[in-house]
Amino acid sequence: MNLRYAVIGTGALGGFYGGMLAKNGQDVHFLLNSDYQQVRDLGLRVDSVTGDFVVKPIHAYSNASAMPKADVVLVCLKTTNNHLLKELLSPIMHEDTIVVLIQNGLGVEQQAAASLPGAQIAGALAFICSSKVGPGHIHHLDLGKLTIGSFNLKQPEVLQQIRFDFNDAGVPCQLTDDLAMARWQKLVWNVPFNGLTVVLNATTDQIMANEESSKLAHEMMYEVVDAANASGVPLKRDFADKMMAVTAKMTPYAPSMKLDYEHKRPMEIDAIYSQPIAEALKCGFKMSKVEVLEKQLHFYNAMNLQ
Amino acid sequence: MNLRYAVIGTGALGGFYGGMLAKNGQDVHFLLNSDYQQVRDLGLRVDSVTGDFVVKPIHAYSNASAMPKADVVLVCLKTTNNHLLKELLSPIMHEDTIVVLIQNGLGVEQQAAASLPGAQIAGALAFICSSKVGPGHIHHLDLGKLTIGSFNLKQPEVLQQIRFDFNDAGVPCQLTDDLAMARWQKLVWNVPFNGLTVVLNATTDQIMANEESSKLAHEMMYEVVDAANASGVPLKRDFADKMMAVTAKMTPYAPSMKLDYEHKRPMEIDAIYSQPIAEALKCGFKMSKVEVLEKQLHFYNAMNLQ
Repeated sequence: MNLRYAVIGTGALGGFYGGMLAKNGQDVHFLLNSDYQQVRDLGLRVDSVTGDFVVKPIHAYSNASAMPKADVVLVCLKTTNNHLLKELLSPIMHEDTIVVLIQNGLGVEQQAAASLPGAQIAGALAFICSSKVGPGHIHHLDLGKLTIGSFNLKQPEVLQQIRFDFNDAGVPCQLTDDLAMARWQKLVWNVPFNGLTVVLNATTDQIMANEESSKLAHEMMYEVVDAANASGVPLKRDFADKMMAVTAKMTPYAPSMKLDYEHKRPMEIDAIYSQPIAEALKCGFKMSKVEVLEKQLHFYNAMNLQ
Repeated sequence: MNLRYAVIGTGALGGFYGGMLAKNGQDVHFLLNSDYQQVRDLGLRVDSVTGDFVVKPIHAYSNASAMPKADVVLVCLKTTNNHLLKELLSPIMHEDTIVVLIQNGLGVEQQAAASLPGAQIAGALAFICSSKVGPGHIHHLDLGKLTIGSFNLKQPEVLQQIRFDFNDAGVPCQLTDDLAMARWQKLVWNVPFNGLTVVLNATTDQIMANEESSKLAHEMMYEVVDAANASGVPLKRDFADKMMAVTAKMTPYAPSMKLDYEHKRPMEIDAIYSQPIAEALKCGFKMSKVEVLEKQLHFYNAMNLQ
């Protein structure tokens, strides 16, 4: 069985993951916004550390209602655009369509389920350095692994096929039985470093090099671990220790939130901060330190977008 | 009895308070650093909302060992220079000299007492908008009230004379029996707004205008109030509420720490943040939110001074 893929949001993530599938001969349909004409005429250009390529001809659309129904919808929007999910996805879903949210943060599956009653939803975490450098032009710098887990799939086995398609296309992909664990694990890194790179106007290496700020990042990681545990996800504190050790060895890196801020795009404060804070609080745990960063980010966001 | 005053640190505070006393005929001796020659030759210029004046002739010194012994030493250094206290004050103290620390933060009297064994120490809080705008040139913009309290004076009555001298010179001055309370009260405002104006790169009115950042400031005020209570100082939370209301009506204002940061001077992180945090922790209370700001300020300070 061949799956038909739709990519909603053809940017740094959607351009790369959808592009890799299309390059490998999969049936992929891309929804584009401002880049539509460029991509329709010239194709989608992906400069990747694994080899540059252009997807052309390409199934490109400027409007979801013109797209065919898809078996798998890869949602690669920023979570700040998730209020558009119902409008963008409804036209392209059939009864068995699988929605895969390749997004950061917490609570995105719950929100999508509320917007799309009856939809079958999976979540995915992308470990990738990738950015859009121009219209229809993606620069893939490093990594790329996807971790996918079922949220409410009736037949989670379908994820095996999706995993096969990605692996076959050269994208390392693994499945997880515990999507909540995967999301909290990623938050351990994302919570301190996405926000602190903005508020401290710094790259990861600068934060790691300063004793006080690296201690702050480490403490925030522990707070995320403690919040996960309060929420019933048994993460261990040594996972945070490992993340700190990994970060100390990373090349200087500006996380996606820092790039969003610099490009005057809205930051994903709700998914990465407010949702975990609310989830932990619901379970009786107060993320005091992370709350400070959340509020500071709201201020930065407001100043940036005014 | 006429008191002989020495002013250590002739900047925004020392220039104004010492200048007002000198203008009124008090015997005041000023220690200067980089501005010495300018002030010796041209006097000390104070542009004040209460009337401009120049102190000339003036008792100006570039070296404490050249100064006469003083009855009252007004310490108007930034707390970041308090490691110099022993060197600067020892030459000018006699057996009954009163040291008045006109400084922000907590623990400054304890530190001075450790540096100057046997010294008689008082603390003072300045409620003033004043800055040094050029060599020997002070701009006094608003307010000016001093609150003075004994730390370890053998005869606290001497403060009556000091209060009289200030009042007589046109500086509103009151005495307090509870210096710890006065210091914690001032921290209620200083802790959120000194640090947040730096880390958010904002003025007080911008912080107040944004719902999230004003909430953060308010929460940090409560944390200071709670810390004060843990330390045995019975502040009430409605004091914080009042401070918020006052700040909402203030004209846009950049606190001293923000000015220090902008002029690439060291910030008073220890006195305003680390000391209260340590004092509260000693009493079993953790200032979780303020700790975040403290560490962020250390990072900003390190980047700023490198």
